[in-house]
Amino acid sequence: MRKLFFAVLLSALIIAEFIFSQDKSYYYHETAKKVVTEALNKSKGYEYLKELCEIGPRLAGSKNSLKAIDWAVNKFKEIGVDTVWLQPVMVNSWERGDIETAAIIGSNNNPIYELSVASLGNSVGTDNDGISAEVLEVHNFEELKLLFEEAKSKIIFFNRPFDNTLINTFEAYGKAVDQRIFGAAEAAKVGGIGVLVRSVTSLYDNVPHVGTMIYADSVKQIPAAALGTIDADYLSGQLKKNPNLKIKMTLSCRSIPDQKSYNVIAEIRGIEKPEEVIVVGGHFDSWDKGDGAHDDGAPTLQTLEILDLIKRLNLQPKRTIRCIFFMNEENGSEGAVEYAKFAESENSTHIAAIESDRGAFTPRGFYVTTDSTRLSKLQSWLPFLDHALIEWIKPGGSGADISKIKIGGALMGYVPDVQRYFDVHHSDNDVFETVNSREMEFGSAAMTILAFLLSEEGI
Amino acid sequence: MRKLFFAVLLSALIIAEFIFSQDKSYYYHETAKKVVTEALNKSKGYEYLKELCEIGPRLAGSKNSLKAIDWAVNKFKEIGVDTVWLQPVMVNSWERGDIETAAIIGSNNNPIYELSVASLGNSVGTDNDGISAEVLEVHNFEELKLLFEEAKSKIIFFNRPFDNTLINTFEAYGKAVDQRIFGAAEAAKVGGIGVLVRSVTSLYDNVPHVGTMIYADSVKQIPAAALGTIDADYLSGQLKKNPNLKIKMTLSCRSIPDQKSYNVIAEIRGIEKPEEVIVVGGHFDSWDKGDGAHDDGAPTLQTLEILDLIKRLNLQPKRTIRCIFFMNEENGSEGAVEYAKFAESENSTHIAAIESDRGAFTPRGFYVTTDSTRLSKLQSWLPFLDHALIEWIKPGGSGADISKIKIGGALMGYVPDVQRYFDVHHSDNDVFETVNSREMEFGSAAMTILAFLLSEEGI
Repeated sequence: MRKLFFAVLLSALIIAEFIFSQDKSYYYHETAKKVVTEALNKSKGYEYLKELCEIGPRLAGSKNSLKAIDWAVNKFKEIGVDTVWLQPVMVNSWERGDIETAAIIGSNNNPIYELSVASLGNSVGTDNDGISAEVLEVHNFEELKLLFEEAKSKIIFFNRPFDNTLINTFEAYGKAVDQRIFGAAEAAKVGGIGVLVRSVTSLYDNVPHVGTMIYADSVKQIPAAALGTIDADYLSGQLKKNPNLKIKMTLSCRSIPDQKSYNVIAEIRGIEKPEEVIVVGGHFDSWDKGDGAHDDGAPTLQTLEILDLIKRLNLQPKRTIRCIFFMNEENGSEGAVEYAKFAESENSTHIAAIESDRGAFTPRGFYVTTDSTRLSKLQSWLPFLDHALIEWIKPGGSGADISKIKIGGALMGYVPDVQRYFDVHHSDNDVFETVNSREMEFGSAAMTILAFLLSEEGI
Repeated sequence: MRKLFFAVLLSALIIAEFIFSQDKSYYYHETAKKVVTEALNKSKGYEYLKELCEIGPRLAGSKNSLKAIDWAVNKFKEIGVDTVWLQPVMVNSWERGDIETAAIIGSNNNPIYELSVASLGNSVGTDNDGISAEVLEVHNFEELKLLFEEAKSKIIFFNRPFDNTLINTFEAYGKAVDQRIFGAAEAAKVGGIGVLVRSVTSLYDNVPHVGTMIYADSVKQIPAAALGTIDADYLSGQLKKNPNLKIKMTLSCRSIPDQKSYNVIAEIRGIEKPEEVIVVGGHFDSWDKGDGAHDDGAPTLQTLEILDLIKRLNLQPKRTIRCIFFMNEENGSEGAVEYAKFAESENSTHIAAIESDRGAFTPRGFYVTTDSTRLSKLQSWLPFLDHALIEWIKPGGSGADISKIKIGGALMGYVPDVQRYFDVHHSDNDVFETVNSREMEFGSAAMTILAFLLSEEGI
């Protein structure tokens, strides 16, 4: 009975949150519907994505990334925002080079089976002759430490799969990605001379999925590459037959000096409280595989489309809505740090931020980092967000870029359906064709409604 | 009302947590998690779908459809269900034939632009020389009636687009599909000699999307074909330049005598109340374009996978869970009628049914037709269904096949994310490759959890 009492009390409190006047509620419903209709009708964000993907992938520091930045500035001008500016930032830079091969070799050192590999971001290359060595297969760092006597002078093959039984693909990613990020450092500690890492992906194909890796200060930098999941299983099978098989791996990738790049920042100033800023954004850089369509092209353009939709519908936000295309989330996060510094120095208050960096699939909800009062206030907006297929707002992590900003109110992360995200993530699969127009536009609409409500109601 | 709905739903969820004993609640949560893990881990349904799609599309009455029925019987036997049997049913049958062309022709009657077309199901063909005529473009039946004087001896071109601004793609489909179903009958009434219908699809491509059409008893049967959306716009543009342009259309399709086919019926008998039956199912026939992967191959195999998962996890349902592959939902629904007749004659009670016929995308919820008490009971299970990404259970239509059955408790329709469904529906786009393993398996898991709860708790 006590439980029941609390349940009823809680629902009364929930109802109490719907204290908008009839007029205001009507206005927000109508605005939300208009936003959705406009987004779906014109599919502008999707058109912009096509243009962006035609430029090619946007590795931070690359020529493509600078072309894309130019494109973005022009697009914001076309839209007619109040301000667009470039915030310079030096970014950690790395180049893939032309050569990335790994092959199982025979006794005469000739290749007998070519593996599908791609260098990991920040990896050193090999010299021109490559490295040839026997292979030690392990599944985690503990196993590697136990087998340290066998590791010396070998290529260490990390082969722990992405756990497809987990409901949340981000959790599965989180549980496998340590091999990719720290595998080379751990391998070097026990005398390994190179690393192959099973691709961290939900898909069973042979496309290597890349991403950043980090060396440890005190140990040797050894070359590291991602391996397609089919070839990871193949290599594992061959090792069972012949534990002494050798691999020759040649990588021409290399780090280069930090390059000058930019955050792109655009805003529509609030007509009542312009000094209160709501940030929306994603990262504009991508890996150099595919088009960087889902990571993070489309989600970043969804945040551009927030400003676009506000202008097209002639909404007049009370508070400032600022869109930021952060530079180099993938390989240094210098853009996020730079913006956070600027935000602290600026004569304004950042009241809320929404990050879009989980792909451009159908909306499900928003994660939010805030207190319980503000959480309830946000949840009271669900009936308006429901027009854009948003089902829930619940506590959870927002995103790597906005979480560096000092925010008074709420840090939010847009959560679409992420079941297909790691099929494409950081790979040649991540192309324009895998983005669906309706799914992308619903996401733009969902974030536009939320940003607009934040601008009207504060937090 | 909307506010109230959310508040009531939320409090139902809160109260739900207190309805079950701690033990029972724990057991249901653990079972639900096991179901999801098993589905995602083995992806059996997805493997079955690959096998099924390799047979080819399954137009009712076709050789392929009979091969698929054989395949299904063997699959149910492999799974180890208690019973599998075939229920004979005569089905309305139609063949596409080899020829389906339509071209804009020049003054010498030679084709100058080939249009992308496909005959509509049940359409009569033309004679071998085809029909050549001027074209009247209209957007609805009212416009056609107003323009009846211009319609005589013309090919009537129905060009009302799928409304992509609607949130629910099924609503958009419902608002456009009358042109396809009744266009030929309406055109014949005003003297039209043939029909072209803009494809009813959310995608802007040039793939014709087919489907059933129905003649009126009293008027002439004239040939009808679907037209790719790009060519629909092209033809419309050309008609503006030259209202007298002519089209030549040749179709070799034809109706054939009713063929013998079968519903496939398989069940696991309840250990406590075997006479209480819970039906799960979809339609096993498809159109003869693509593989019929999303419509309705994968969704039907999801219902097979309910029995499969129950066997693999060694669950012992209290009530009987019966899976039905209905025959010819697309072009006659004779399978549904036949089963409904059998159900009435049978010495058992059908307490609930779940239909799966909206594609195999990520789960969102269930529509249900029932009373408010039963609705609340079903909604109290949401915490268990949440493991399979089910967000809601709300009043709505179940499905064409199960709605013919007399059901005591609840008629339910599984609702995945339907944003991409009409991209592929009834077309060459509907192939195995468009189905995502994780999305499909979550659907299997969601329906397995619901069917198991129904078998344990009744309704």
